[in-house]
Amino acid sequence: MDYERLYAQDVHNFMRSPVRDIFRKVDLNSIFSFAGGYPNPVTFPIREIEAISGSVLERYGAAALQYGATQGLTRLREVIAERYSVPVGNVQIVTSSQQGIDVCTRILADPSDIILTSDPTYLGALQSFRSYRARVVALKSYDAADCGVAEDLLSKAKFCYVIPDFQNPTGQTMTLAQRLSLIELSRRYGFLIVEDSPYRELRYSGEPVASIYSMAPERTLHLGSFSKIFAPGFRLGWVIGPEEVLDKIYVCKQSLDLCPPVLDQYIAAEFMGSGALDSNLAKSIDYYRDKRDHMLSLLSRYMPENVTWTHPEGGLFLFLTLPDGIDTVRLYDKALTAGVAYVAGSFFYVDGSHRNTMRLNFSFLDKPRMEQGVRILSSLLDVR
Amino acid sequence: MDYERLYAQDVHNFMRSPVRDIFRKVDLNSIFSFAGGYPNPVTFPIREIEAISGSVLERYGAAALQYGATQGLTRLREVIAERYSVPVGNVQIVTSSQQGIDVCTRILADPSDIILTSDPTYLGALQSFRSYRARVVALKSYDAADCGVAEDLLSKAKFCYVIPDFQNPTGQTMTLAQRLSLIELSRRYGFLIVEDSPYRELRYSGEPVASIYSMAPERTLHLGSFSKIFAPGFRLGWVIGPEEVLDKIYVCKQSLDLCPPVLDQYIAAEFMGSGALDSNLAKSIDYYRDKRDHMLSLLSRYMPENVTWTHPEGGLFLFLTLPDGIDTVRLYDKALTAGVAYVAGSFFYVDGSHRNTMRLNFSFLDKPRMEQGVRILSSLLDVR
Repeated sequence: MDYERLYAQDVHNFMRSPVRDIFRKVDLNSIFSFAGGYPNPVTFPIREIEAISGSVLERYGAAALQYGATQGLTRLREVIAERYSVPVGNVQIVTSSQQGIDVCTRILADPSDIILTSDPTYLGALQSFRSYRARVVALKSYDAADCGVAEDLLSKAKFCYVIPDFQNPTGQTMTLAQRLSLIELSRRYGFLIVEDSPYRELRYSGEPVASIYSMAPERTLHLGSFSKIFAPGFRLGWVIGPEEVLDKIYVCKQSLDLCPPVLDQYIAAEFMGSGALDSNLAKSIDYYRDKRDHMLSLLSRYMPENVTWTHPEGGLFLFLTLPDGIDTVRLYDKALTAGVAYVAGSFFYVDGSHRNTMRLNFSFLDKPRMEQGVRILSSLLDVR
Repeated sequence: MDYERLYAQDVHNFMRSPVRDIFRKVDLNSIFSFAGGYPNPVTFPIREIEAISGSVLERYGAAALQYGATQGLTRLREVIAERYSVPVGNVQIVTSSQQGIDVCTRILADPSDIILTSDPTYLGALQSFRSYRARVVALKSYDAADCGVAEDLLSKAKFCYVIPDFQNPTGQTMTLAQRLSLIELSRRYGFLIVEDSPYRELRYSGEPVASIYSMAPERTLHLGSFSKIFAPGFRLGWVIGPEEVLDKIYVCKQSLDLCPPVLDQYIAAEFMGSGALDSNLAKSIDYYRDKRDHMLSLLSRYMPENVTWTHPEGGLFLFLTLPDGIDTVRLYDKALTAGVAYVAGSFFYVDGSHRNTMRLNFSFLDKPRMEQGVRILSSLLDVR
């Protein structure tokens, strides 16, 4: 049967995730992987989840197994609303913050519509934008005078996508001035801001910067996730935003998947509402701070001197810049053979440039394996 | 801020689900509801799920809480493949079979593309088709000579959507001859068949009819669901289909939500693989058979003589046809005030016709409440 003639046009724009495709082929435990954005399993509160899932089933029984509300479990929306000081009506639960990105794109972008983004940016967001055939335009800066995008494009933009805290892939954080500039740009040209915030609570040093949502709630869709602060397997996230826009997401979500997973929501609500999340988070932060510090010291110790990297105050990633001659896309198979995995930095750039960069995750490997991995990687990059 | 100018065109075609909107406003326990497609909570294996979730966390620990594969947990794909006698490569797990419908539509239908469907049909499918601005065309029959759709439309159709077993909303089952006719139509005009099959295993009487997938695997996407045979709160379903088409779904799903909920998949795999699903299903079938029989006898006893209804051999619904003068959309508020809920049949028709019909669910209410509900409903419909 000829399937090709049946596919929608979107399909021709689907981008395979090189990260997900790596995981399909390679057993992560057989190599030293700096590739994924996986939290370290030692931060997972397995015993607490076991206890909570038992008690939730005891207490709520069938309600935890039945269909749920499309906007999400009320109790979960309440604990999120309380944590982020917003009314419950401004909280929509989504089945992963990836779904949050996808549904925001779905309700806002037609083919050829303009989506602004920082550059580099999260690969899963680029996948989603491109799957709807939107035109992705990179901002050079958030300053109207120097953003590198023509006025007519800015005024046609539907939204600007940013990850202000400990960005994926660079690990960098937007300054307050940059956030205010972006809000000013958004006011001037009438586009929304999608603030993707999965790492915000994983700060290891420095001072928090006000979220964009807190400074411009009427023009921001703030995406949150349980993946990095609880456990990714639950596939639960949230969108905080103007009720009018959330209502479109609500109706769209009816046909996407009816409602988020219900038992998982009961467990997450109990975990967050009981304070267990905060104590687990405090332990995760200590654990990851140590990991980050170790990674930075390993890089200082082993990397050739013409390699530079970011020094993130939180999150899971840092970003390497190598001498111009090194092509991390081409180097990849050699690296895998040598036993290390990373993600080439160019995958995160809108135009696929910067082939001399790479993203390294510092949360997944334990310290000894991290050291072995950095040593292998360093020897591959030593082109003196 | 002017949000209206920012929305994608799809948004203007979003259809609110009248069923979901009812649930948003009315406490189901305060009325006699025949409206939803909710399985009865007595069929939920709460104790087994509690035991399994504990043992899964003991055995698999962090793996059950980490990110998972986009195509779904291998063990779950294996037990589904075994149950339906297909290779594991033909099984993709989806986050609810609603997502299965949505993702099939997404990869196949551009705006104005033609989707064929039985009429009436599942409302959530119509929502999804319309949200992509597809043109939904109702087949009058599955017979090429008498299907009521012009040849040029048939040859442009992307797929035909059917629920062959105990259809939602009518409860009716496609005969073998109808299935073979549809396959023949699909062969002649080159479109795929999306066979939505959430109720197939809930047969209370009569003999099973071969699934469309089993007779035409190269041209069928078969959707399955745990919602009616296990528990809807898990939001897990599957697509069985040609590997080439599943690969498009796989790539699309990367940007939709990365992967299905992981702990839930471990629990479902254990429940299905251990045989617990089959013994629970046998109990559910006995329970629902009794419910269906009771509902049919109540209708015979209380309904005015000019009302007719379907006699389903399985599933959760039956369908009432009332005298022409009765408009079930208009009657709805009066019914709610009187304490009963149903879904007007016209919502399931592509053109919104048949306002003298209604869908009744017979799985949710217990027998005494079912009787009270049927009595109230009958008195509302008695226009002699």
